[in-house]
Amino acid sequence: MTGVGEFELIEQLFANLAGPGGFSLKDDAAILSPTPGHDLVLTKDAIAEGRHYLTSDPPGDVARKLIRVNLSDLAAKGARPRAYLLSCAWGRGIDYVWIEAFCAGLKADQELYGIELLGGDTIRVEGPSVLSLTAIGDVSEGQMVRRSGAKIGDDVYVTGGIGEAALGLRVATGKLSLPQSDADALLQRYRVPVPPVSFGRALSSFANASIDISDGLLADLGHLCEASGVGVEIRRESVPVSQAVASALQHDDTLWTLVLTGGDDYQILFTADAERARDIEAAALRTATQVTRIGRIVPTGISVLDADGQPMSFAAKGFQHF
Amino acid sequence: MTGVGEFELIEQLFANLAGPGGFSLKDDAAILSPTPGHDLVLTKDAIAEGRHYLTSDPPGDVARKLIRVNLSDLAAKGARPRAYLLSCAWGRGIDYVWIEAFCAGLKADQELYGIELLGGDTIRVEGPSVLSLTAIGDVSEGQMVRRSGAKIGDDVYVTGGIGEAALGLRVATGKLSLPQSDADALLQRYRVPVPPVSFGRALSSFANASIDISDGLLADLGHLCEASGVGVEIRRESVPVSQAVASALQHDDTLWTLVLTGGDDYQILFTADAERARDIEAAALRTATQVTRIGRIVPTGISVLDADGQPMSFAAKGFQHF
Repeated sequence: MTGVGEFELIEQLFANLAGPGGFSLKDDAAILSPTPGHDLVLTKDAIAEGRHYLTSDPPGDVARKLIRVNLSDLAAKGARPRAYLLSCAWGRGIDYVWIEAFCAGLKADQELYGIELLGGDTIRVEGPSVLSLTAIGDVSEGQMVRRSGAKIGDDVYVTGGIGEAALGLRVATGKLSLPQSDADALLQRYRVPVPPVSFGRALSSFANASIDISDGLLADLGHLCEASGVGVEIRRESVPVSQAVASALQHDDTLWTLVLTGGDDYQILFTADAERARDIEAAALRTATQVTRIGRIVPTGISVLDADGQPMSFAAKGFQHF
Repeated sequence: MTGVGEFELIEQLFANLAGPGGFSLKDDAAILSPTPGHDLVLTKDAIAEGRHYLTSDPPGDVARKLIRVNLSDLAAKGARPRAYLLSCAWGRGIDYVWIEAFCAGLKADQELYGIELLGGDTIRVEGPSVLSLTAIGDVSEGQMVRRSGAKIGDDVYVTGGIGEAALGLRVATGKLSLPQSDADALLQRYRVPVPPVSFGRALSSFANASIDISDGLLADLGHLCEASGVGVEIRRESVPVSQAVASALQHDDTLWTLVLTGGDDYQILFTADAERARDIEAAALRTATQVTRIGRIVPTGISVLDADGQPMSFAAKGFQHF
């Protein structure tokens, strides 16, 4: 970072990430107000080198992961993403070229999701990088979808496929060998999640309860059920998996545990009344989102039934980033 | 951290920091809307162990510094603080007892400033701790005080005293010896800044431009002047210093450079029309805030006149946290 200080970096790289509202990159703070008739929805998640991403991951992918793990929270709450603030604590080995590529990744996702950088700060640390982002969206007044609204008898759905990132991390760390094209697909999904942002905006019109799947499907089922005071029963064979995950499971059936508890999916888990099935299908079609019914809400307990309809047992219910 | 995971920590320690709006500690995101007729003001600053605070600093003081460096930004923009989100990346040696004391510090400042915790996350890192906070306030619609409004002829003011934290850091690192009571006072100011939050809320009624002093008085004068397209002339003898700083300067006149460029003051630097002097004095009295006129806005250049009215020169204009 020889000769380039914080202010110059902000000027050179971050200034062109600020949208029309982003004067704050040259001020102490930013202004934001909700669209009339809307509430602002705020979320804040950090990712750390060596824990949520690997030192060798491409910097543009790290930037996009940072944005997307936060947009995943907004999507699960039914919110439209609008803007973000960023704190970068750059660790050892991060040079100007790295930060430049990181900013290019931010820029690409800003354009993809229609969001702008409002402000933040950059510091140096003698250790792993820690990157923290606050994402802000809006949702029609009083319509944020909470974890706590699930009712007995609700259908339980997930978006996308489950387990790709968890297997991708195994591939990245050399703990799982797969055919190259499968390995590449899973690794890429670990590096850059694809939260269902467009589908999320429709969520408040049919979902009773919702959570983003980050700790693992089983752990997040547990969080949703705990908040709602209910239980859940899912069928393992209904859990949607990509072709690469299916193929890995075919070779090694014990990977199911990792798929169901591995985390980093950044998909939406939600519940809805049975009679909303057609609306959900329509929203899925309209936003080109895979949506799968995996079970239903029951009075108590969290059960996964295997192919024979027998309850499975799990040692650990989720991956904790801690 | 044996046996205590992220979720348990959040439950045990952070849950009781959440106010009525803080359901989000058990959800993916929080809702916030401005008071009618107001804009939300957002700012995000991180502090890192070994850079913005010392490993040996009391955890409650670290918590209060983290909150206050952010409230300082809100105060300088004329905003009333309302809420915050928090990302803690806890490094080596941080145990449950440390985090408990940290949370007690958060709690104390929440009560002092009338703010509540809305959400965030906690992770572990193999390195120094990095603590990032997003603070949210509100200000009457369109009334946020920007850096860019200074006009030629404006009076230039600062709140509080300058240089205390910079000398306090020297004391903490053993680079400056002072009588014990002076040393203690300066060290405490380094650890726990006292931003003029109440005075800040009056700022929009008289200030043309404003910035919080975090990089050092001279550097922040530079930022304000650059944003406003003007220059400034200040008199060194007008710069307010506490009794402890004055006494240190009496022993060593060369410490003036550190006082003027050292940073971490977390006071407000603002400009106003000369005819607003009486309003400013009234606001200062009403909020028990020390406010001092230190110079005026001129067309170009940043000059500090010494006791003899001669321009001083400085090698470094500010401390960069980088």
